[in-house]
Formats: sequence, structure tokens, C-alpha cells
Amino acid sequence: MAYRISIIGSGNVAWHLAPALENAGYGVFEVYGRSPKRVKELVSRLYEAEVKKDLNFSISKSDVFIIATSDDAVEEIAQEISLPNEDSILVHTSGSLSAGILSYAATQHIGIFYPIQSLTRNKPMNFDEIPICIEGESTLCRGVLKELGNAISRKVVSINSDQRLALHLAAVFANNFVNHFLSVSNDILKENKLDQDLLYPLVKETLEKTAEIDPKDAQTGPAKRHDFETLDRHLEYLKKNEELAEVYRIVSQHIVDSHPLE
Amino acid sequence: MAYRISIIGSGNVAWHLAPALENAGYGVFEVYGRSPKRVKELVSRLYEAEVKKDLNFSISKSDVFIIATSDDAVEEIAQEISLPNEDSILVHTSGSLSAGILSYAATQHIGIFYPIQSLTRNKPMNFDEIPICIEGESTLCRGVLKELGNAISRKVVSINSDQRLALHLAAVFANNFVNHFLSVSNDILKENKLDQDLLYPLVKETLEKTAEIDPKDAQTGPAKRHDFETLDRHLEYLKKNEELAEVYRIVSQHIVDSHPLE
Repeated sequence: MAYRISIIGSGNVAWHLAPALENAGYGVFEVYGRSPKRVKELVSRLYEAEVKKDLNFSISKSDVFIIATSDDAVEEIAQEISLPNEDSILVHTSGSLSAGILSYAATQHIGIFYPIQSLTRNKPMNFDEIPICIEGESTLCRGVLKELGNAISRKVVSINSDQRLALHLAAVFANNFVNHFLSVSNDILKENKLDQDLLYPLVKETLEKTAEIDPKDAQTGPAKRHDFETLDRHLEYLKKNEELAEVYRIVSQHIVDSHPLE
Repeated sequence: MAYRISIIGSGNVAWHLAPALENAGYGVFEVYGRSPKRVKELVSRLYEAEVKKDLNFSISKSDVFIIATSDDAVEEIAQEISLPNEDSILVHTSGSLSAGILSYAATQHIGIFYPIQSLTRNKPMNFDEIPICIEGESTLCRGVLKELGNAISRKVVSINSDQRLALHLAAVFANNFVNHFLSVSNDILKENKLDQDLLYPLVKETLEKTAEIDPKDAQTGPAKRHDFETLDRHLEYLKKNEELAEVYRIVSQHIVDSHPLE
């Protein structure tokens, strides 16, 4: 069915998601957002969309309302929004918030449409390759999200809320922690007047391997080898930075314990 | 100068390094290793090399002896090896060992020739793109290593031993820790019957970003936002695994402290 869609939000997710939905044949008719400039820019990327100035959608002709804002704005929007009728579908795009946060709104068709990607505004993005997790609190909502998801992505997964929490936690480890340690590494290189590029091929290779073999089997390094002499040398180096030394100690111990010697 | 080279070791580094040196015009004449089968296989990849059955190189015609073994074999080899003369150059390829570990050998021209990559035996590898760090305890050794390095790689960096320790520590964070958290993430996905592929595009994007912008500026997630509610939800989820919960807590706190709110 050619659902009509309204987008609430004009950030990175909205920026990529709205045109992707249009390209798949779904009309995006309204865009609401806190930044008039960004709303206008997004509307100008779309065929038929108009700027919506408030959250009163009671006379809107849309079927689906997608809240694609930062996490901390979602609850307030759910409290303020007026929907056209009880069959309206209201979803957010956050991986860390429950669907229940939308229950202030006057519809039971609430859910989550979560593209698992960290989207950057000015970088072209092939939505086709971005996995989308969907969760719906009604059969209608689940059905519509599945259809929209399959129209823009090759990988749509229905999850329950336990899985959503686990997925978000897994993403924190695989994305936020990984990025943080790349940053820590980078700082150490800089302090020692070493080029960041030196480690790039190694990191690239590590990542490419994880697509082929279980990263557990690809683990290398002193902690995996239970090489406590090297660990001590590294801790000695880090002693000027107590907090980072503690991080190094705790993570290394976890690697040691995850890889008992045969 | 067309240095003559002998390789001690038949593991992953030797497997890639020996042919790369040959392709750059340096003759590899001898290969010694603990596994006769692998030594034979490596020799068969080379033009003129012969199998060397022991560490007595006293009548060898080689100028450069490269120990490309696992870290824990290097010291013993340095104790046992006999070199042809005092001008012989003896180096190892480890990022975590000092050059001094080679000082048992009867030459002062000791050093390190460290390709920063985790090499896999059966995977073709373009040495050209692998950064090589060199460290030499004599002018002769430094000069030769620089020449060999530049012949096979576009990026050769002379480092001192403080930098080597820092570089190795940075590699532990960027490679071993990153891989470990990819593994932790993978375990959580598996436990919840979620496909590992779900997070792959996200991780790929994170890494590609680090080549363009400082990873510190690319940090996202609950810890960076000081979103303690989400951190608590994740810790609650992890309570069945105390050690991992502690890892999560300590690393998240470090991210929080590295990113004070403005």
C-alpha cells in the first residue's frame, strides 16, 4: 500500500531516511523539526513535502509518523503530538528507547523503525545495505514497518524488546567501545610523534577478518598469550594516567579470562 | 646494495616477507625453521633459497639474518645462532620485543624490522601498503634496514625504543582491544539469536571514519552523552556476568571522563 508518511525531525537519520522512502515509492508529505533551516533543506530534497510548523497532525492525511530525532526529544514529542486518528502509526528510530515511550500518544500502533547505522549528514549512504530492526506493538504496526523496511533495505529483522536491549548493548561494544579505543590509540601515537596512519592497515585487516571468521578465533596480542611481562611493561608506561591504566588492566584481564591457555 | 638474506622462521611473517624481499631484488638464500614441512613450502616459493637445518650460519654468505618467528622463540635463537662475522646484521620482526634481546649474538649490528600488520598465511598481502618500523643499534644496521624497508613498503618509519613501546601499546588498544570488543559484541548477538551481520555495516563505517576524522570527534553512544540511565540498563543486563559488567563500567566511565559535557 502506498502509505503516506510524515517525518518528525531533520537530523541525520531524517536526512537519509526521508529520500530513501520516497525513492521506494512512499510519499513523504510533511517534515517537522526544531531547526527551520534544516527542515527547509530536507523539504527541498523531497518531491511533495511541506514544512510542518507544529506537532498538531490532527488534520494530516498521513498514515505513518516517524520520529527521527535525538533520543532525548522523543518522549516530549510523544506527549505533544496530535495524530489524525486511532489507526495512525507512530514510531521512533532509536535503538536505545523502548516503543513504550510513545504510549502517551493517542494510538496503540506504536513501534520502532531502527536503521543500524551511524548516519552522517553530508555523506551519501546506500540505505539498501543498512540493516533495519523493527518492533511493533500491534499487528498493523508490525506489518507496515515490515513493508517499509523491505522497500528500502535488503535486511529487515523483527526483534522483541529483550533483543533490542541486547542489540543496543552489542552495538555499544562493537561501535562505541571500538571507536573509543581507536581514539585512545590515536592519542598515544600523537604523544609519541607517531603517525596515526601507521596502525590503519592493521585495524582494517582486523575488521575485514571479523566478516570471515569469529573474532574470538582471530584474537592476538599479549593478553591472549597470557604474556604478563608485556602487560606489566604497558602498565608501567601508563602509570602517569591511572584511569587508563585501570582500563588496560581490567580489559586485559577479561581477554586473559576469555582465552584460557590450552 | 644487493644484500643477501637468510630467514629464520617459517610462520606467517616469513611466508610473506621472504617473497616480498625477493621481488624487490634481494636474494633470500637460506630458510631455517622448526617445521620442516613449512620451511620446505616457503623455500619452494623462492628462487634460490635452500633449507637450512640448524642455526650455525658461520659459513653463510648472507649479510642480513632476519628472525621472523613467534616472540617467545627469539631469545633462544639469539643465544644459539652463529653468524659468519662481526658485520653480520641480525634483526627480529617483533613489535613487542626490544632489539637488546638479540645481544647474545656475536654482532653489534642488531635491530628490529617490524611490519605493522597481522599477517595471515594463505591470504595474499600487498606489502607495499604495510608500514614498517625500523630500529637499529648501529648506523650500519639502521642504513640496511631503511634500504630493505623502502624497497618493499611505501611507509618506513625509524623509531626509538620509547616509541616502539608506545606503538605496541597503541596497537594493543587499536587491534587487540578492538577485536576483543567485536568478539564480546558477537557473543551477545549470538546469545540473543541475532545475526552478527547486523552490526557489520556500523562497524565498517566507524572504521572508515577514523581514516578521515579524529575518532575522538566521531565518538557517539550513551557514555559520550553521559546518558547514565542507558548505562544502568546495560549494567542491569550484564549483571549475570560480573566481570564483563565491570569492564563495561570502567570503559564507560573512561569515555564519560574523556568527553566532558560542554
